[in-house]
Amino acid sequence: MKWDACSLARITADQRIRKAVMKLYEQYADEISRNIDQGILRPGDRLPSVREACRSRHLSPATVLQAYRLLEDRGQIYTRARSGYYVSANWKGFPPEPEPSRPPETSTPVNVRDLIFELLETTKSEDFVQFGSAFPAPDLFPFTKLARALHTAACRMNPLGIYESLPPGNPELRRLIARQYVELGCSVPTEEIVITTGALEGLNLCLQAVTRAGDLVAIESPAFYAALVAIERLGLKAVEIATSPREGMNLAALATALDRHSIKACWLMTNFQNPLGCLMPEEKKQELVKLLALHDVPLIEDDVYGELYYDRDRPKPAKAFDHKGLVMHCSSFSKCLAPGYRVGWTAPGRYVKQVEEAKHMTTIATSAPIQAAIVEFLKHFGYKHHLRKLRQELQARQNQMLQAVGQKFPQGTRVTRPAGGYFLWIEMPESVNALEVYRLAMERKITVAPGQIFSPRRKFENCIRLNCGQMWSSPTEAAVTTLGGIVTALA
Amino acid sequence: MKWDACSLARITADQRIRKAVMKLYEQYADEISRNIDQGILRPGDRLPSVREACRSRHLSPATVLQAYRLLEDRGQIYTRARSGYYVSANWKGFPPEPEPSRPPETSTPVNVRDLIFELLETTKSEDFVQFGSAFPAPDLFPFTKLARALHTAACRMNPLGIYESLPPGNPELRRLIARQYVELGCSVPTEEIVITTGALEGLNLCLQAVTRAGDLVAIESPAFYAALVAIERLGLKAVEIATSPREGMNLAALATALDRHSIKACWLMTNFQNPLGCLMPEEKKQELVKLLALHDVPLIEDDVYGELYYDRDRPKPAKAFDHKGLVMHCSSFSKCLAPGYRVGWTAPGRYVKQVEEAKHMTTIATSAPIQAAIVEFLKHFGYKHHLRKLRQELQARQNQMLQAVGQKFPQGTRVTRPAGGYFLWIEMPESVNALEVYRLAMERKITVAPGQIFSPRRKFENCIRLNCGQMWSSPTEAAVTTLGGIVTALA
Repeated sequence: MKWDACSLARITADQRIRKAVMKLYEQYADEISRNIDQGILRPGDRLPSVREACRSRHLSPATVLQAYRLLEDRGQIYTRARSGYYVSANWKGFPPEPEPSRPPETSTPVNVRDLIFELLETTKSEDFVQFGSAFPAPDLFPFTKLARALHTAACRMNPLGIYESLPPGNPELRRLIARQYVELGCSVPTEEIVITTGALEGLNLCLQAVTRAGDLVAIESPAFYAALVAIERLGLKAVEIATSPREGMNLAALATALDRHSIKACWLMTNFQNPLGCLMPEEKKQELVKLLALHDVPLIEDDVYGELYYDRDRPKPAKAFDHKGLVMHCSSFSKCLAPGYRVGWTAPGRYVKQVEEAKHMTTIATSAPIQAAIVEFLKHFGYKHHLRKLRQELQARQNQMLQAVGQKFPQGTRVTRPAGGYFLWIEMPESVNALEVYRLAMERKITVAPGQIFSPRRKFENCIRLNCGQMWSSPTEAAVTTLGGIVTALA
Repeated sequence: MKWDACSLARITADQRIRKAVMKLYEQYADEISRNIDQGILRPGDRLPSVREACRSRHLSPATVLQAYRLLEDRGQIYTRARSGYYVSANWKGFPPEPEPSRPPETSTPVNVRDLIFELLETTKSEDFVQFGSAFPAPDLFPFTKLARALHTAACRMNPLGIYESLPPGNPELRRLIARQYVELGCSVPTEEIVITTGALEGLNLCLQAVTRAGDLVAIESPAFYAALVAIERLGLKAVEIATSPREGMNLAALATALDRHSIKACWLMTNFQNPLGCLMPEEKKQELVKLLALHDVPLIEDDVYGELYYDRDRPKPAKAFDHKGLVMHCSSFSKCLAPGYRVGWTAPGRYVKQVEEAKHMTTIATSAPIQAAIVEFLKHFGYKHHLRKLRQELQARQNQMLQAVGQKFPQGTRVTRPAGGYFLWIEMPESVNALEVYRLAMERKITVAPGQIFSPRRKFENCIRLNCGQMWSSPTEAAVTTLGGIVTALA
């Protein structure tokens, strides 16, 4: 339904009083909000363009934009690149969010490899609907421009450039990454940045730099499965910490664990965690850094989704609050610019020398022309513009997926509402086993990530993670319907 | 001196008798050989072109070519790409080769990181003469063609291609590598091949797949320093095995070590080892595989220099003789096609699953467009032609370096004469300390690799490894003179 701006003009007596103390843009936002509440505007409806609204309401473009941004911040509307503003999924009719996790306080060895590799194998099938994949949907990325950047970079590459690309890595790339930190209000010198073959190499190198076999590592519950495999592979043990689907790791629980156990490192995701999508608030990040510093425990901060925020500003990493060089910040271009190119980096604080040496002695360098291509793209191919489009599109896709899940999944389903990234964490009714869902879905050529792979004890049996960054199309929609049917039948 | 083909025609009575039972090409080769022995032809002299020789000697081109190849095989002459045949360095006047090493039979922890990283740091300086570098000289590689291959590959890449590049890696690249094995008379199925970020990643993954902290690993003496760092980093211990500069590891010594110690893996280079350049003969490779199989010990075979043979055929890897899946063969395109691109592979026998999973969980994939670019080059850019030129040029450079070292280094110097690769191992008079040479050379902007970095006990104090693949120019020649002066002064 194309929606007419004039129909907003219904104001009651109550509202007239409120109006007296409200700014113009707040009034306008309030009107739209009420129309959404009353069902006059429905999920998916397009709002009037800024120009239309200005004309029909006699408002300035700035006022209309401010109103729309306010509504966006509240999650009531969202923008779609080059298309306009749309009403978000119907939050009120939507399933509630899951409760924070409550893992046992004891440490545990990890044993989930087999399950994880079974899933990873299936995510290679091109003809499957990849809700189980951790990769961002490829259609979101500028591969043609990247190929051009690669060609320019490779042609220009001085043959001696291969020496430049050796650890710590391409100096210009490291300078550009340091500049990104500055923009984030985070002071990381170029010298601290080590280029890695994707973030995962950085994370592994950081973990190896600060642990020895048998050590304990604090992780979120649920946690990113690559952290679990790293812990399993290196013979470490996990201490799971209660984690909220909204705000991330519970710091009181972490403090208790730090008191009880001799924890050697903490590995977590501060921004749009995989799989929960939770975003740790800024004050909490500060507190986290302080708490770990008190115990002299290094933080391995995985921040690969940080650029995929739907809000106005990029959330800071915990690294921004580190004064002791204890935060080992890891990120990459794999989720926000160039999937498959395998360029990441780490800023490992006081451990930079160890990490750089370990990099040199395991994979030597990250591919020289690839490093140079990323430099080329960052400088000349509109990186920020690409990011803006990407975020809008991801938010739009999340909205569509949320709406579809709300409609197709059974009563008793809980779903996260992340403010960034491209994952939804779905808690199904207790009787539903995620592995069963996974196997039945596979038969219908749909992948999902079962909750068990995110837990060293194979818990979260009734949870699945869905990749909501897939292009929204009728096969995608049909797949959600199929999935909802499977879950309903099992409930 | 341009040399006249007619001057070969001096035949004595004795020779006339011998001639009766020799083939025509052998006779011609014999004549040239005698002229070299008698000093009529001197090192560096150009032989008549095939056409000139045909005309002046009334021989067929096939006969002349066969004669030249015979002399090449004997090491008396060498070819330079697009230039012709030249007389090799004067072997007879040349320093003798070093003796095999005699390491102690006890195991040892490894502690050489600091030294190694100091050296690695210096090899990044562009204005140094890089005799200490392990990288092949960049001027030997087709970077412009590689850039084109990269562009074509990146443009053509299906966005879903990133899934294809996941471990075990690009299927077409793996098929082409499997075909290389077939050409080598070595049966390795495509399914066994895992693409890695350079050979070093493969080697590290293989070592991790078969060892746990505290285990013993048999290595050559001297050994490639990355093996030492890997052993040090993983908390393993080394058992050094006596190694001949000509034929590699001493198998009797290895057998003794296998009896005495509980060795969990053997890591070595069968072809043109770094740093000795030794080439293990085929029968010895067979015997090595048999011996290790008897003890059920996996062999981590580093074969990155295998393509750089000066002889007519590529030497086989030990992998060719493996029937139990115990040989983990590792190689790459970094030394023979695309330095800095970071594409290698491993064929890890029965450990393929563990290696593939470890790859997936440490660096995920090797860069997708880079994998595709190598496919493109192998198929359409004249890889074999490039290899032929590369080998000829490396042999020519080795000859020049051997000659220069023979002239400039003091009495008592011993030098290896590898039949491939681009390293010379120089044993200086006993009183000379390689670290002193290293530091004095650094002051003159020349790097060398001191013997100590190739030994877990920092032995080989009077040895250095020189990269003889550098472009031969007056600065290179001057650098050898300077180095010879430093060593002479210390002797």
